[in-house]
Amino acid sequence: MPDKDALVLGLDFGTESVRALFVDLRGTERAASFAKYAHGQITKRLPGVRHDLPPDFALQHPSDWLESAVRATRNAWRRVGKTGTRLIGIGVDFTSCTVLPTQADGLPLCLLPEFKRNPQAWPKLWKHHAARSQTDHIGKVARERREPFLDQYGGTIGLEWFFPKVLETLEEAPEVYRAADVWVEAGDWIVWQLVGCQAFEMARSTCQAGYKGMWTSTDGFPSKPFMRAVNSEMVDIVRTKMPGRMKPPGQQAGKLSPKMAKKFGFKPGIPVSTAIIDAHAGVPGVGAADPGTLVMVCGTSACHMLNATEYHSVPGVAGVVRDGILPGMFGYETGQAAVGDAFDWFRRLTKQKGYAQITQLASSLKPGADGVLCVDWFNGCRTPLMDGSLCGAFTGLSLRHGAHHMYRAMIEANAYGLRWIVEMLRESGVPVKKFIATGGLPHRNPLFVQITADVLGEAVLVHPSKQGPALGAAILGAVAAGKRAGGFSSVRSAVRTIGGIRKVLESRKGCLITPDRSRAKLYKPLYQRYRETASFVQKSSAKL
Amino acid sequence: MPDKDALVLGLDFGTESVRALFVDLRGTERAASFAKYAHGQITKRLPGVRHDLPPDFALQHPSDWLESAVRATRNAWRRVGKTGTRLIGIGVDFTSCTVLPTQADGLPLCLLPEFKRNPQAWPKLWKHHAARSQTDHIGKVARERREPFLDQYGGTIGLEWFFPKVLETLEEAPEVYRAADVWVEAGDWIVWQLVGCQAFEMARSTCQAGYKGMWTSTDGFPSKPFMRAVNSEMVDIVRTKMPGRMKPPGQQAGKLSPKMAKKFGFKPGIPVSTAIIDAHAGVPGVGAADPGTLVMVCGTSACHMLNATEYHSVPGVAGVVRDGILPGMFGYETGQAAVGDAFDWFRRLTKQKGYAQITQLASSLKPGADGVLCVDWFNGCRTPLMDGSLCGAFTGLSLRHGAHHMYRAMIEANAYGLRWIVEMLRESGVPVKKFIATGGLPHRNPLFVQITADVLGEAVLVHPSKQGPALGAAILGAVAAGKRAGGFSSVRSAVRTIGGIRKVLESRKGCLITPDRSRAKLYKPLYQRYRETASFVQKSSAKL
Repeated sequence: MPDKDALVLGLDFGTESVRALFVDLRGTERAASFAKYAHGQITKRLPGVRHDLPPDFALQHPSDWLESAVRATRNAWRRVGKTGTRLIGIGVDFTSCTVLPTQADGLPLCLLPEFKRNPQAWPKLWKHHAARSQTDHIGKVARERREPFLDQYGGTIGLEWFFPKVLETLEEAPEVYRAADVWVEAGDWIVWQLVGCQAFEMARSTCQAGYKGMWTSTDGFPSKPFMRAVNSEMVDIVRTKMPGRMKPPGQQAGKLSPKMAKKFGFKPGIPVSTAIIDAHAGVPGVGAADPGTLVMVCGTSACHMLNATEYHSVPGVAGVVRDGILPGMFGYETGQAAVGDAFDWFRRLTKQKGYAQITQLASSLKPGADGVLCVDWFNGCRTPLMDGSLCGAFTGLSLRHGAHHMYRAMIEANAYGLRWIVEMLRESGVPVKKFIATGGLPHRNPLFVQITADVLGEAVLVHPSKQGPALGAAILGAVAAGKRAGGFSSVRSAVRTIGGIRKVLESRKGCLITPDRSRAKLYKPLYQRYRETASFVQKSSAKL
Repeated sequence: MPDKDALVLGLDFGTESVRALFVDLRGTERAASFAKYAHGQITKRLPGVRHDLPPDFALQHPSDWLESAVRATRNAWRRVGKTGTRLIGIGVDFTSCTVLPTQADGLPLCLLPEFKRNPQAWPKLWKHHAARSQTDHIGKVARERREPFLDQYGGTIGLEWFFPKVLETLEEAPEVYRAADVWVEAGDWIVWQLVGCQAFEMARSTCQAGYKGMWTSTDGFPSKPFMRAVNSEMVDIVRTKMPGRMKPPGQQAGKLSPKMAKKFGFKPGIPVSTAIIDAHAGVPGVGAADPGTLVMVCGTSACHMLNATEYHSVPGVAGVVRDGILPGMFGYETGQAAVGDAFDWFRRLTKQKGYAQITQLASSLKPGADGVLCVDWFNGCRTPLMDGSLCGAFTGLSLRHGAHHMYRAMIEANAYGLRWIVEMLRESGVPVKKFIATGGLPHRNPLFVQITADVLGEAVLVHPSKQGPALGAAILGAVAAGKRAGGFSSVRSAVRTIGGIRKVLESRKGCLITPDRSRAKLYKPLYQRYRETASFVQKSSAKL
């Protein structure tokens, strides 16, 4: 029986806020707190700057991350309260690909007076979509050269990835690119700050690198000839501007530095795990240690993670990385670029005070929203088309329709998009047996889960933990601590003990949402209509 | 010089209200007033009934028409004020096809206790869209039998027309159909009430009958064999339930009855003109007496009327009627089913307080609304597809877009739809040389007119009279009065004297809106994209 006084901390860095979660080694959540980023998402103007950012920009303030993490952690730790407890490990998950340029000592360039007004020097949030032409260029070069890494991404380079964002800076603000000693994923940067090591010692996560950085376990980062073909100035970027050591999530990145220990209020020397992508942390977070379980982390966007024992090439998959999520398995990642974000956009567009009324009205509608059909590409299409330039649509609108028809159509569209993804995985030979939904939205929005189950025609388990990714990060912290320090020797054993699904099902009945057979039947032709409309939208977009 | 003390009254019965306009015989507007219908459009529930109407229902209360007309007329007459003036004629325009069943004495069936709860006994407003299957059936029978009247409607029967609405009542509530002594257009019913004649003496307008009643100047109403093929019970409807005499607008229908004279506060015996469709009244109303001028009456919907010297078969035209608008010419009618209605729907959907702010923001956007494209079929497509079941759409939506992008896209879609109609007319050999916009919306919404001019690439004259149809009705009242009574001997001479365009252009400069050449150029490819999207929406709808 694990020591009940030994706790681990999961730090979950999201798009708007950071969540701190303390759990013990039996999986009991002992305290949690979150703190919003003071600057939130920076999409309109940089702090202290009077002119607007270009369209499609989404930046963050790097000081927000640490400050909010300290605030949330101290708050949660106060709530743990009990004396005698001790922290044995820290895990970190982060949005990805969120990327920033820094000095050799880790200081973000955007904090320097000479760069603070230059958007290209700021951390680019995962949803920053301004590197379109760079994405196209990198994809074209990769396809022309038949780069081996293409296969693990279904043949497509994502608009939200590492190298397009870096190349955008090089093209738009070469002085920033040149001034950067280090280009780094924000999750790796946070871990680097926590352990306070030298740049060359920093742990770069194979998860972030594998899913967003064109890194493969066999070939590493892209080759020099490839980088030269992309842009001659980038030829040696990996060696000169990307220092560090590749480590999988759960492996110890280092130990909490005295400086950071003081900030957070802990003793120095606590093991810190290598970072993991926030969505991917949801997989251990919901206790999914077995292949075939699709874990859907649904928040502003949706990420779907699935482990499988075999590698299959899947067209349009966002990434397949060996040991990318759990050791010993191939981690498949797919995603939908706008879920909660799209609902919020629509809520603002139609000036709803909240979701209560519109959800109630939408719930009373039959499948098909009285003819209104939506294509859910309001922030581009991630899987299966991997095209950030695609847009959303509504058809079937008439004067008798209200906001609730459109809202239901948006939820249905999201479920159709998921069904498309699941069909594609299965057709490619990847088994999908179970569905677990987590990430915040599924708990707040039962209609969303029910429509998802009805459209899939399969049951969806809503994981009762509202902090799936934070719990996953904490589990990785327990693994980083190691067995000798009271933690675990492997991710799989930690998952089984701390976050087991059986325990979840036993403790809370009714979180398994089963499909309604009659509605599921109605959704079959509606799904076909969605596919046809999506296909038109895609073709029409290609002509622009 | 016409007698300045002789006035004519135009009564313009719209969808929400009636407008009363007094003009003298030189075309000076002396006073106007309008009065809303107490029950407005009845789309949710019948008065005193607790359950909802079926979808697509739009009814009106027949008592509203006369009560509002009396109120508006008395108000306006008070404003005329001056003693010595005398009323020499009354003209009436009405929405169409608005249709009702009555007793032989003119009493609407819906006012009887046994029918007041039956929606099928109530006047069906032009935009009542519940007779879909009946429209399809009548169209199919007409095409199978190659009925000669089909040609004047571009081969298509409209969802909003007379016989589909009557057949719907026969199928849904045969007891109502059987109880009806008279089936009548609401415009003809009002005129019948004003003159107080016997049913067999009532004036049925060739305009309403020609555009909405499958009546042709050569063959009259549809034949008995055709009606039998539609529904055997309707075989003799024209002879048994449609009494009256066909008369063109402007011809005297009778004289104001003592009962009505008392209600309105005039002397009995004033000549009343045969009714005209509200939109069609706009043509004399804006002084368009010559062929080749497209008069766009833009309000809740848009009706486009055009006179030509030759008959051409035009696919998808809503109607071509000899002497339908002005004597001696072929009147072409086309239309767009939702204009102001669609803007209002969107304003309510996005909870705008008014149009000021959204219009300002929409004005600042470039052609193409930053990628947002709309298909404007929110109440079906009238011309050119004549399919009331078609629906509206938006494509190109992303999280960066606000309500003003969608609003501009709606206005642009409306202009694209008009351009399609104009191209179709010209390709069929019908000259279109000038554009005049009237009907209320063009005066309130300069952005609408400018975008229309830019998309057409041609100048649009906004007629400064805000009461085009009411003025047209008044002109017809002057014709009904006849030359001997101080009026006119022909519609054309009345139009030239009362509503001449030259006078308008001389009196108000700047109401001619010219296209911006650079914007017009940008709209060319955007229009093609609209056509492609509309084509997909149409095909996709056909599969449902």
